[in-house]
Amino acid sequence: MDEFSLIQRYFSRHARAGHEGVVLGVGDDAAVLRPSPGHDLVMATDTLVSGRHFPADMTAFDIGWRSLAVNLSDLAAMGARPLWCLLSLTLPEADERWLAGFADGFYALADETGVALVGGDTVRGSLSVTIQVVGQVPANKALRRSGACPGDRICMGGTPGEAALGLRQWQQGVHQGDAVERLCRPLPQLVLGEKLRSVASACIDVSDGVLADLGHLLDASGGLGADLRVDGFPDTPLFAGLSRQERLALQCHGGDDYLLLFTLPPVFNRPQGCLELGRVAAQPGIRLHDGNGELLSLPGSGWNHFSSQGDG
Amino acid sequence: MDEFSLIQRYFSRHARAGHEGVVLGVGDDAAVLRPSPGHDLVMATDTLVSGRHFPADMTAFDIGWRSLAVNLSDLAAMGARPLWCLLSLTLPEADERWLAGFADGFYALADETGVALVGGDTVRGSLSVTIQVVGQVPANKALRRSGACPGDRICMGGTPGEAALGLRQWQQGVHQGDAVERLCRPLPQLVLGEKLRSVASACIDVSDGVLADLGHLLDASGGLGADLRVDGFPDTPLFAGLSRQERLALQCHGGDDYLLLFTLPPVFNRPQGCLELGRVAAQPGIRLHDGNGELLSLPGSGWNHFSSQGDG
Repeated sequence: MDEFSLIQRYFSRHARAGHEGVVLGVGDDAAVLRPSPGHDLVMATDTLVSGRHFPADMTAFDIGWRSLAVNLSDLAAMGARPLWCLLSLTLPEADERWLAGFADGFYALADETGVALVGGDTVRGSLSVTIQVVGQVPANKALRRSGACPGDRICMGGTPGEAALGLRQWQQGVHQGDAVERLCRPLPQLVLGEKLRSVASACIDVSDGVLADLGHLLDASGGLGADLRVDGFPDTPLFAGLSRQERLALQCHGGDDYLLLFTLPPVFNRPQGCLELGRVAAQPGIRLHDGNGELLSLPGSGWNHFSSQGDG
Repeated sequence: MDEFSLIQRYFSRHARAGHEGVVLGVGDDAAVLRPSPGHDLVMATDTLVSGRHFPADMTAFDIGWRSLAVNLSDLAAMGARPLWCLLSLTLPEADERWLAGFADGFYALADETGVALVGGDTVRGSLSVTIQVVGQVPANKALRRSGACPGDRICMGGTPGEAALGLRQWQQGVHQGDAVERLCRPLPQLVLGEKLRSVASACIDVSDGVLADLGHLLDASGGLGADLRVDGFPDTPLFAGLSRQERLALQCHGGDDYLLLFTLPPVFNRPQGCLELGRVAAQPGIRLHDGNGELLSLPGSGWNHFSSQGDG
């Protein structure tokens, strides 16, 4: 089977119209799509390069899942419901087994989240995956990074740092377990994102780490600051064996969680399953306090990810 | 200036709302876009890998122009008017001069065609450019590859083979002139595409070569064939010095022209500036005839581009 047929075989599952809004799917010069009246479109793209955004020895299934997940997470952060995606795959060779595994992982998450693959491109080169996702929100209802106000609660859709722990384990040769699962198969918080549309004042998904992404949100909200409480970062069983300082470093700086980080006006309670990390402050800078309100030094230090343009 | 600031500096020109349908541009987790009522969206993506889809020594300006052009050409082939795009740039290093040149070429064509860059992603890796374009057509008016009928004229938006000639010259060390310009700065035929919406029965853009792309169109139209006339492939001054056979090989098999290839029911005349290559036939296969109707052998042979998924 030649390469052209392989691609056709593995990436045409959503080819036919029938998915919501798909007038014409894979197979022409472009896809033709019909948006719902009264809705805004939300579009994002992320590229994942082998060895940089995922371990080179990650399974094809997990690469397929994860590549789609990190893109859907951007839609979740906007409160959007996913509709369609395009896949640009750069492959060193057409390896049928690899393609089959990648497609299985990709479609497993696509089917779970209702997003249809409507087009793409496959080229020869070093392994890299670029996905573009399109979702929709009722007009003017997209969540943004801007909009946080002093006094807002700072909340998160789960425990940060577990994916970073998974990466550490992976690098130590441990390729299974709950933490590794967090790294390999992040679950974009689409349901939470839709719920937050009516309550959150600002939202971002955590890809670069809590402090870095909270910094982006506070900057976008007009240069605000934050007071975080150390007990906002829970010591879950996954972190057993780590010192508090090691755990906090992972939880403050570790990326790859793809959990939503959002701010809530004081009038709203935090949604079930979410953590409260602290409060937005008028004074710039991010500070960490212990249970008595005493200032703790922030673990480690932030850094600029080259991979972050801040809008993907 | 760090890498993050460089990217912000060079790719935020369309960041603010103000372009048609842009509610929120570069700078959040995703862009927010408002489609026009009564229109279908048309979406495509193409990846260009250095040394594979453009010469590694092409100027940054031309890489920027060309990467956008080949994507817009997919919209032209659907009869769509471009609205928005996302840019995923994989770079070996953050070279300010290169980025400035790339951005100049990219925005030169973006401004000429009215498409707004609303988001993207930049990562470290070997040089590769992925662009996603979104355009719109009045509902149900997109041109497709299917729809050709026996007896339809086969037309083309200009002379094929000139970009392939440019590539040959480039590889011989000639880096300027009209043919090289065709290769480096293809002009997507967006105006022609919109005109064809009301007349063409099928349309595709020529990226893989006339015979290969005509084959895709005929296959999509139900396994039809074509009778081409050799005088449909004109001997323009650019081809001076080539034998007829060399020229025809470039014109039949050379890719990269990004001209529209389309079929017209006999009742319509071919649009100004377009060539007529021949007629669609019920009998499968593509045949080439001389002025007396005698069969000529087709020059060279076709091949499968790995880069073509057939839908990008």
